[in-house]
Amino acid sequence: MSAAPERAPLVAEPLTAGAFAPFGEVLEATGAHVLINEGRCRRYSDLAALDIAHGRAGVSFFAAEPRTWPVEVPLVERHPLGSQCFVPMSGGDWLVVVAGNGPEGPEGLRAFLARGDQGVNIARDTWHGVLCPLGDAGTTVPRLFAVVDRIGTEGEPAGANLVEHRFAAPLTVHPGA
Amino acid sequence: MSAAPERAPLVAEPLTAGAFAPFGEVLEATGAHVLINEGRCRRYSDLAALDIAHGRAGVSFFAAEPRTWPVEVPLVERHPLGSQCFVPMSGGDWLVVVAGNGPEGPEGLRAFLARGDQGVNIARDTWHGVLCPLGDAGTTVPRLFAVVDRIGTEGEPAGANLVEHRFAAPLTVHPGA
Repeated sequence: MSAAPERAPLVAEPLTAGAFAPFGEVLEATGAHVLINEGRCRRYSDLAALDIAHGRAGVSFFAAEPRTWPVEVPLVERHPLGSQCFVPMSGGDWLVVVAGNGPEGPEGLRAFLARGDQGVNIARDTWHGVLCPLGDAGTTVPRLFAVVDRIGTEGEPAGANLVEHRFAAPLTVHPGA
Repeated sequence: MSAAPERAPLVAEPLTAGAFAPFGEVLEATGAHVLINEGRCRRYSDLAALDIAHGRAGVSFFAAEPRTWPVEVPLVERHPLGSQCFVPMSGGDWLVVVAGNGPEGPEGLRAFLARGDQGVNIARDTWHGVLCPLGDAGTTVPRLFAVVDRIGTEGEPAGANLVEHRFAAPLTVHPGA
């Protein structure tokens, strides 16, 4: 058996709506909005293309351990039955790893550096890494995210909405310049 | 014409799931959860009873001007066609004013002091004040919230999902002890 091939490290690029478009939407308070509440609030409406099959969308909270650079990404996953929208609640940068869906699994891996005031909605069945807030070394306080995704139906098989792909060669992500 | 009657000030009480139950749900990272992502993330699932009629739920961002104590509440509103879920993204306390739906309008006003790691889902057709982050005097930087609520359908009349009640006597809310 030969050794796992070397994999070139990924470099995180800034998260922008245009760059992320093949994978879903970026949620942020920029651009078109309406003024509500007597002008004291700006509403940026309908930022995520929620796409839920055979079930319903729900709101959950995720409390995730922060990671540090360089970030090791052992696997990616996809959800065939629903989009998954992540919104940070604790501030700070976080990392979004995504990939296209090739015939043999994930291909064209990309890494995006999201700010603490940006959310993402990952399109249904799109490969992505697990939730990855970025912290300082030694900081282990979990960071909170609100997640809008599919809530499974009673009695469906465990994992009905989860496909995992574990990399033969580990993927490492480095910060951009 | 007589002067508007005096109204006793409201005192904000801590936001707890039990106290808020008549008006909707409190979203917070406590209690039942599952471990995901190889144990590095806790998932608190399905925290809000989304209730959307004649349309669909969407995710929006609200950027709201902070207020200071005592808070003046000139009006409350309700949304007959959908629940409205608020999740803070910028940290800090915020104020949630709600009321029961009496025959003549809002009755039994309550004020809840929410923390920056707590969301609320306000039940469909429940009277509530507008989004109200609390800041220090002189701080005008808007605070960001993610909102999951009803996205109106094309061509429906403006205000189809909004009823407002403006108080004859202004309501003032003070911090709790």
